[in-house]
Amino acid sequence: YPNRMLKIFSLNSNRALAEEIAETIGVSVGKCSVKRFSDGEIQINIEESIRGCDVFIIQSTSSPVNEHLMELLIMIDALKRASARTINIVMPYYGYARQDRKARAREPITAKLVANLLETAGATRVITLDLHAPQIQGFFDIPIDHLMGVPILAEYFEKKKMDEIVIVSPDHGGVTRARKMADRLKAPIAIIDKRRPKPNVAEIMNIVGNIEGKTAILIDDIIDTAGTITLAANALVDNGAKEVYACCTHPVLSGPAIERISNSKIKELVITNSIPLPKEKEIDNIVQLSVAPLIAEAIVRVFENKSVSVLF
Amino acid sequence: YPNRMLKIFSLNSNRALAEEIAETIGVSVGKCSVKRFSDGEIQINIEESIRGCDVFIIQSTSSPVNEHLMELLIMIDALKRASARTINIVMPYYGYARQDRKARAREPITAKLVANLLETAGATRVITLDLHAPQIQGFFDIPIDHLMGVPILAEYFEKKKMDEIVIVSPDHGGVTRARKMADRLKAPIAIIDKRRPKPNVAEIMNIVGNIEGKTAILIDDIIDTAGTITLAANALVDNGAKEVYACCTHPVLSGPAIERISNSKIKELVITNSIPLPKEKEIDNIVQLSVAPLIAEAIVRVFENKSVSVLF
Ligand SMILES: Nc1ncnc2c1ncn2[C@@H]1O[C@H](COP(=O)(O)O)[C@@H](O)[C@H]1O
Ligand SMILES: Nc1ncnc2c1ncn2[C@@H]1O[C@H](COP(=O)(O)O)[C@@H](O)[C@H]1O
Repeated sequence: YPNRMLKIFSLNSNRALAEEIAETIGVSVGKCSVKRFSDGEIQINIEESIRGCDVFIIQSTSSPVNEHLMELLIMIDALKRASARTINIVMPYYGYARQDRKARAREPITAKLVANLLETAGATRVITLDLHAPQIQGFFDIPIDHLMGVPILAEYFEKKKMDEIVIVSPDHGGVTRARKMADRLKAPIAIIDKRRPKPNVAEIMNIVGNIEGKTAILIDDIIDTAGTITLAANALVDNGAKEVYACCTHPVLSGPAIERISNSKIKELVITNSIPLPKEKEIDNIVQLSVAPLIAEAIVRVFENKSVSVLF
Repeated sequence: YPNRMLKIFSLNSNRALAEEIAETIGVSVGKCSVKRFSDGEIQINIEESIRGCDVFIIQSTSSPVNEHLMELLIMIDALKRASARTINIVMPYYGYARQDRKARAREPITAKLVANLLETAGATRVITLDLHAPQIQGFFDIPIDHLMGVPILAEYFEKKKMDEIVIVSPDHGGVTRARKMADRLKAPIAIIDKRRPKPNVAEIMNIVGNIEGKTAILIDDIIDTAGTITLAANALVDNGAKEVYACCTHPVLSGPAIERISNSKIKELVITNSIPLPKEKEIDNIVQLSVAPLIAEAIVRVFENKSVSVLF
């Protein structure tokens, strides 16, 4: 491949992040318009040749998830027909990841469906960040690089040089993540151990681990309606924590999330830009960290045929 | 298959049509809720067993096209995992049909992508109506039944017992359809022959065929922004037609469509319910015909392993 070239394209979900990634790498974002016809159908025009190129599309399937996913599928189709050498999907946030199993009869497994759709359209590789379940990697038959947000979040708290911290998982599912964070910050862990004694009876919040007088850092992968995390924060303060920080990789922040966070005892919420924070959700105690350096490095390593796992 | 059963399910695009189809067949619409999680992700719950059944899903991929398409794909995934015997997609309106070829460099062929997505999800058959291009049938590797709206539209005009009618195609692409309508109504045809002498110069509208003093019936497959059809209607009246009717199978009616129709010289616009007409678009001179009897018959014939082509 004599003229092998790296090209970055952005669709509509994360344009600022795409610019930042391209700048870090030292290229410019490819020319491409992504608009709607009068009836709402997606119209994509790729305005530069990509023949023989290694193309990286930056697009989270964040809200509006179905619009963002269809933009991605149509873009992949257009690139494939325009003779791209490889089509690499950079999906900082993988939508529908929570629908990853049949929890009840006759449920879809939409996370697997999405994997199939991306492959059918013509994706040749996926780069993603903090999948809700790491098993989703196995939903793909193409290579997938699974990056992690914990180092970015840990680095931020490290710089604060706080002492007597404890890393808290807001539920049973997140303990492994809390452990990883704790390793980096050389801190102990605690777990919010919720249980419902009977159906239709209020949950009991029990805290496993010592938080008395400490700075608690709650960590989760996704904060969606923020119910879990704000209840956990308040329980920590009520049980003697000195102060409570919260952090997550993917700030979905839907419905009542911002209001709940504002009214909670969370001192500061630290998130990444895997999903951009719209103006109306920018409140004082939210700090957004960029995943651009991490993703830029992963892209360059993929392009240069080098291992990506060194980034973990 | 001892307990082979026919089940009809409706998603969100055409609930009234689905009810009408089910009633015609003599079954009830299957229990299934199609909602959204707080972040906009689609949540589908199929509330009755469909194991071993022949399932027919009624869903046009009309606006919002990406929402309706994703509902369909997720529903197919759920049915497949719940052991449906066959999954038959009844798509009265096939969205993205106009993106059926590369008209310019680096364009997607979204109509083909949609076909691939439906097959990947697990569809085993498609029943559709008046595809924008009949070639789209070849985009599928599963059986597809292609029904036609012309008989329904023609029957309506037949009952009016108008004399001296002429069937008019609003552009070159629609002449075959106009010819079919003319055969049924035993009428001659005419064509609006638009051409642009030079780029950026107004189009010239020439009418090929005799319309003087006649009742003209314009026919198209899709009326979207209604630019073409209203200009054609006005040109017909200006050139001596006695009165102008217009008809189409798929009333997309986006953007300025309703305003344009109201302000045009179209006496009556006849459409089908392949796409439901929302309350705010119901104006006096629009008549909507139902495709339910046609589709019900097609479904029953498919279920009974009988030929569907007799319906054409
Ligand atoms: N977008 C969503 N919002 C809220 N809940 C969801 C969403 N997608 C899937 N779920 C449900 O969340 C559960 C999985 O969450 P988890 O137990 O945290 O892995 C499943 O039972 C799903 O039905
Ligand atoms: N939803 C849409 N609305 C308007 N134009 C479209 C749409 N989808 C595709 N097209 C364009 O319409 C053209 C095909 O229309 P036609 O020539 O009538 O088959 C293609 O060149 C497309 O770029």
